[in-house]
Amino acid sequence: MSNPADTPERRSFYNKIDPDHLTPLWSVLSDLVTKEPGSGCVPYLWHYPIVREYLLEAGELISAKEAERRVLILENPGLRGQSRITSSLYAGLQLVKPGEVAPAHRHTQSALRFVIEGSGAHTAVGGEKTRMEAGDFVITPSWEWHDHGNESDQPMIWLDGLDIPMVQFFDASFAEMLEQDEQPLTRPEGDSMARYGEGLLPVDYTQGTPTSPVFNYPYERTREALEALRQQQQWDICHGLKMRYINPVSGDYAMPTIGTFMQLLPVGFTTESYRSTDATVFVIVEGQGKSVIGDTECEWKPHDIFVVPSWFPVSHIALSDAVLFSYSDRPVQKKLGLWRESRG
Amino acid sequence: MSNPADTPERRSFYNKIDPDHLTPLWSVLSDLVTKEPGSGCVPYLWHYPIVREYLLEAGELISAKEAERRVLILENPGLRGQSRITSSLYAGLQLVKPGEVAPAHRHTQSALRFVIEGSGAHTAVGGEKTRMEAGDFVITPSWEWHDHGNESDQPMIWLDGLDIPMVQFFDASFAEMLEQDEQPLTRPEGDSMARYGEGLLPVDYTQGTPTSPVFNYPYERTREALEALRQQQQWDICHGLKMRYINPVSGDYAMPTIGTFMQLLPVGFTTESYRSTDATVFVIVEGQGKSVIGDTECEWKPHDIFVVPSWFPVSHIALSDAVLFSYSDRPVQKKLGLWRESRG
Amino acid sequence: MSNPADTPERRSFYNKIDPDHLTPLWSVLSDLVTKEPGSGCVPYLWHYPIVREYLLEAGELISAKEAERRVLILENPGLRGQSRITSSLYAGLQLVKPGEVAPAHRHTQSALRFVIEGSGAHTAVGGEKTRMEAGDFVITPSWEWHDHGNESDQPMIWLDGLDIPMVQFFDASFAEMLEQDEQPLTRPEGDSMARYGEGLLPVDYTQGTPTSPVFNYPYERTREALEALRQQQQWDICHGLKMRYINPVSGDYAMPTIGTFMQLLPVGFTTESYRSTDATVFVIVEGQGKSVIGDTECEWKPHDIFVVPSWFPVSHIALSDAVLFSYSDRPVQKKLGLWRESRG
Amino acid sequence: MSNPADTPERRSFYNKIDPDHLTPLWSVLSDLVTKEPGSGCVPYLWHYPIVREYLLEAGELISAKEAERRVLILENPGLRGQSRITSSLYAGLQLVKPGEVAPAHRHTQSALRFVIEGSGAHTAVGGEKTRMEAGDFVITPSWEWHDHGNESDQPMIWLDGLDIPMVQFFDASFAEMLEQDEQPLTRPEGDSMARYGEGLLPVDYTQGTPTSPVFNYPYERTREALEALRQQQQWDICHGLKMRYINPVSGDYAMPTIGTFMQLLPVGFTTESYRSTDATVFVIVEGQGKSVIGDTECEWKPHDIFVVPSWFPVSHIALSDAVLFSYSDRPVQKKLGLWRESRG
Repeated sequence: MSNPADTPERRSFYNKIDPDHLTPLWSVLSDLVTKEPGSGCVPYLWHYPIVREYLLEAGELISAKEAERRVLILENPGLRGQSRITSSLYAGLQLVKPGEVAPAHRHTQSALRFVIEGSGAHTAVGGEKTRMEAGDFVITPSWEWHDHGNESDQPMIWLDGLDIPMVQFFDASFAEMLEQDEQPLTRPEGDSMARYGEGLLPVDYTQGTPTSPVFNYPYERTREALEALRQQQQWDICHGLKMRYINPVSGDYAMPTIGTFMQLLPVGFTTESYRSTDATVFVIVEGQGKSVIGDTECEWKPHDIFVVPSWFPVSHIALSDAVLFSYSDRPVQKKLGLWRESRG
Repeated sequence: MSNPADTPERRSFYNKIDPDHLTPLWSVLSDLVTKEPGSGCVPYLWHYPIVREYLLEAGELISAKEAERRVLILENPGLRGQSRITSSLYAGLQLVKPGEVAPAHRHTQSALRFVIEGSGAHTAVGGEKTRMEAGDFVITPSWEWHDHGNESDQPMIWLDGLDIPMVQFFDASFAEMLEQDEQPLTRPEGDSMARYGEGLLPVDYTQGTPTSPVFNYPYERTREALEALRQQQQWDICHGLKMRYINPVSGDYAMPTIGTFMQLLPVGFTTESYRSTDATVFVIVEGQGKSVIGDTECEWKPHDIFVVPSWFPVSHIALSDAVLFSYSDRPVQKKLGLWRESRG
Repeated sequence: MSNPADTPERRSFYNKIDPDHLTPLWSVLSDLVTKEPGSGCVPYLWHYPIVREYLLEAGELISAKEAERRVLILENPGLRGQSRITSSLYAGLQLVKPGEVAPAHRHTQSALRFVIEGSGAHTAVGGEKTRMEAGDFVITPSWEWHDHGNESDQPMIWLDGLDIPMVQFFDASFAEMLEQDEQPLTRPEGDSMARYGEGLLPVDYTQGTPTSPVFNYPYERTREALEALRQQQQWDICHGLKMRYINPVSGDYAMPTIGTFMQLLPVGFTTESYRSTDATVFVIVEGQGKSVIGDTECEWKPHDIFVVPSWFPVSHIALSDAVLFSYSDRPVQKKLGLWRESRG
Repeated sequence: MSNPADTPERRSFYNKIDPDHLTPLWSVLSDLVTKEPGSGCVPYLWHYPIVREYLLEAGELISAKEAERRVLILENPGLRGQSRITSSLYAGLQLVKPGEVAPAHRHTQSALRFVIEGSGAHTAVGGEKTRMEAGDFVITPSWEWHDHGNESDQPMIWLDGLDIPMVQFFDASFAEMLEQDEQPLTRPEGDSMARYGEGLLPVDYTQGTPTSPVFNYPYERTREALEALRQQQQWDICHGLKMRYINPVSGDYAMPTIGTFMQLLPVGFTTESYRSTDATVFVIVEGQGKSVIGDTECEWKPHDIFVVPSWFPVSHIALSDAVLFSYSDRPVQKKLGLWRESRG
């Protein structure tokens, strides 16, 4: 699949049609319709201690309020200047210091927060506050007001995963600020979980948006589930024990644009090579080990973050019991009929 | 809508066509296509202490093993001899005494168990055992092997709700006994809840049958959810606070043929009149009060069971904080486009 | 699976509990939960010429208007007095004479009309009239006003298939007469087909009820499709070439409670034995042959109607090219997780 | 929503963190999360006679076989060098001359063909050939082998609409050539339409991919449907009479990544202003008129092609009866919860 030769005659034709906003397909076809995925996205690991130090330094340079969100974007080295960690997704680390508020706004972009360190800061969504602990997976759905605050006495750091490039690509971004920094609270803490997350739904409930109405999946609960399942010792050769977060009112992914996963690898476990078309961002929750991504080897410790590009083979080795959170655009690729995987 | 007169000429015609298995529609139309629902099903309440005494007496007359299931069927007074509590559903109270086993079998009929009293007996389904406590809602899905046993030192009593009349109506009953009394256990206790009920699913899970893979919805969890929601004090004028049990992998009802509900009425609350086409069986979990069903008034205490026929107006009065479990054929009527309700 | 013996002691206990509307499960269990389907429904064939003659005679005895619907019900010989052709479905043959009107009414029961003979009578539904020809499959959906009339100069006869027993069973019947005999027409003929049946939908259309908005599936179109497919000569060993009618806005069955099918058997074709849990009513559209249903052999000619009960093995032999229309409760059994089939 | 000032101290910090592939969100936030859609995509109209002349000239410069596909890409003037007509979609005009073959290949990209002129060339998909006529909408689904040929004696020109940018964005492109130029034919012409497009489906059919198995929607049929609906004179103030093509086995859009529409505007009709987040490509099938897109006015005649960017207000004026085909990424935006529209 190479493009036809560009003869002088052809080149002159290309120049002639150019002012009419026409381009010959045959001169670009092999770049447009490639035999295999091949964006510029590359494997990379961010060591948490380094990013953390910079983030605390940023905490001295700018307030959460002035920054609107005090975040360092993790930019894929192959996609610099584009605010992307994969071709379709964004990642950043956010710091909220004691007493700070990240003011209320809303936007069509969906966000996940995965808590890295700290305890007791909160996110408010839809009139309800949730207190965040390390390992919690928190959602701020598309077009819902949300604000964050930190009433604890320690800095709080979490990973933001958003579909910013996707919304940009589909040219569908809307955003606005709330007039107050904090939205009014109308529901007690824990209301969403009780209403939608305990195996029941209000008798006349009908689903509105595709995003899960449960907006905090506490790590305590997730970790206990993994531990219970480990007893049965059904390890997947490529994934160990891997679960996906779901929207309990539909069984779909918790978010329409981002798939989120939690995975347990027992000490000594080495996964077989696996690849899929959804480039994936991993966050180490517990344990240490290494991952081989194509030709790149990444050693990891708690809180490190690494990215596996589309269709790169990956295998993991757990040097201690390890828990990995990850996210990708898999729900979108599945809906569009694009997703593929290959095992072994 | 009254049927046309039966003249002698017509009657003679009817007799002539009868041997060819033909019947004139116009002579039966008004009974077949009625202006409003009108089966023989009537309102009725069973006082638990009375049934309980009989059930214990049955415990002396026949063993669980000989009976296969030692159950007293609650037959609707308007449908005697048909083993139905409503036109489409069955209800019975089952007793398993300490040390007994109700042997393993399977059938296309789906069953719910709602635990009335006792603690520590178990149901085994799909290679997993679950320990049952009062207030738990337990499912034995269509065509899954299931057996019950009681290792505690007290009799255990639960309500069985089945779709027996429905499977009979659709002429789709299959059943078989397992060769052993107890099925082999292949999964640790709690496995289903950890795997499907904590906001996650195995990464490659695909839904098989429509029944929830979580087969015990513990009362402890349900009761806590009701208590949390009560803080917001959003009381429905017809239902108080009413939730439906769901299949977490789809958000549908937990069972394809039977809808199950749990409802909290705070002390002093009187509901407005309500009616719907799904005749409903209520079990009092906590509290006391009364319900007016058409012209019938039923006073209730814990563990009493009563039935509200299709399209009968019902209102409840809670004389103390009351918790009511209920079930009906609502999921089926909704799928068939038949379900109606009317408020106030 | 036989029921335990009824000792005198037990019998006395049964008598004691009877006034409290209680029945021992163990005395009826083997009848309720059977090893295989076993309703009273039996195989039977109605010869069209016989029924037709009776129907014309009925045409002299009562007017369409007085009868509301002038129909002879085909009652399964095993279910006499119940107005059923299978345990869940109804069948009747309706006659509308030239100039007659079957007045407008509506009911929760869904109806299919399969046209047997005549040409040019009409059904009106939802403000639109459709002209009916032999072989057309016409739907009058649940709770839609519908009336029939015959402006041609010949009697028109069609088969009515309804879910009357089902609606009765779920105790959800509602019905009313329109004040006029004929509903006002608000849409031109052919509107529904153009709007929903040509591979397009109105841009902002959202599905309301589960029934197909296309309410006439003309035989001309169906027959041509069968003929086109026959060229590929992919004959199913149990079915020949069998298609199911669909709701084009969802791909589901055309009606939520009744599945409808059209099937072509080329001359000489003998199907292998097949059984399924949905008892099925067949109408011969073209051709002649015979069907063996369990131990019963039915020879058929055009317009004959026969019934295959649940789980009876059936095979067909086509003595000429044959086209068979059929209907059953399959969509319901599939939604409830009850449907089974067995081939060969 | 303006970004915070870049002080020297901050700039020095940005430089320091840059080598670790980190970027401050606050310096780019207002470009990433915009108040309203704002890609570079601009309104533009291509006059068919001009493009046609170039295309015929290309026909002299390169063969269909050498080019693989002889296509001139319509590049949005605001997105030059990116082979896109909107931010997510591709458009090109393809010429196949008498006797030529565009050789068989397959790729994950989905394609629509909308036939502009000529008659009798064919597309083969899934072992079936379909003959193409002006106005036909033809689909080559993701990963299906497809080839085109022209056995007529006239050049054939159609519009290709593909999701190339989308597949590129999600980094999920796979492609391969078949060893022969033309795939083997295994099904007679018309098989797909008879099998899936006439209100029936094979009795045991289950949906595989999300794309419609009907792969040619003939203009003759579409045009007749529009004409029938016009009789009712229900004109939408923003759209006239607008229909979307559907997959008859699901009622979804005919393709998972591209929505396709056909619309009739009667002579003299002026639509009210409308905008939506799915940038849309229009092809004039019949008639003439003009469209106002934001501040840009486009006069159009048959076969002209114009593009309306996301969230640009558009209104149309029909100077004669006009028929417009259009396509956009609406199905994707709807699945992702991103789609918005605004009327008037």
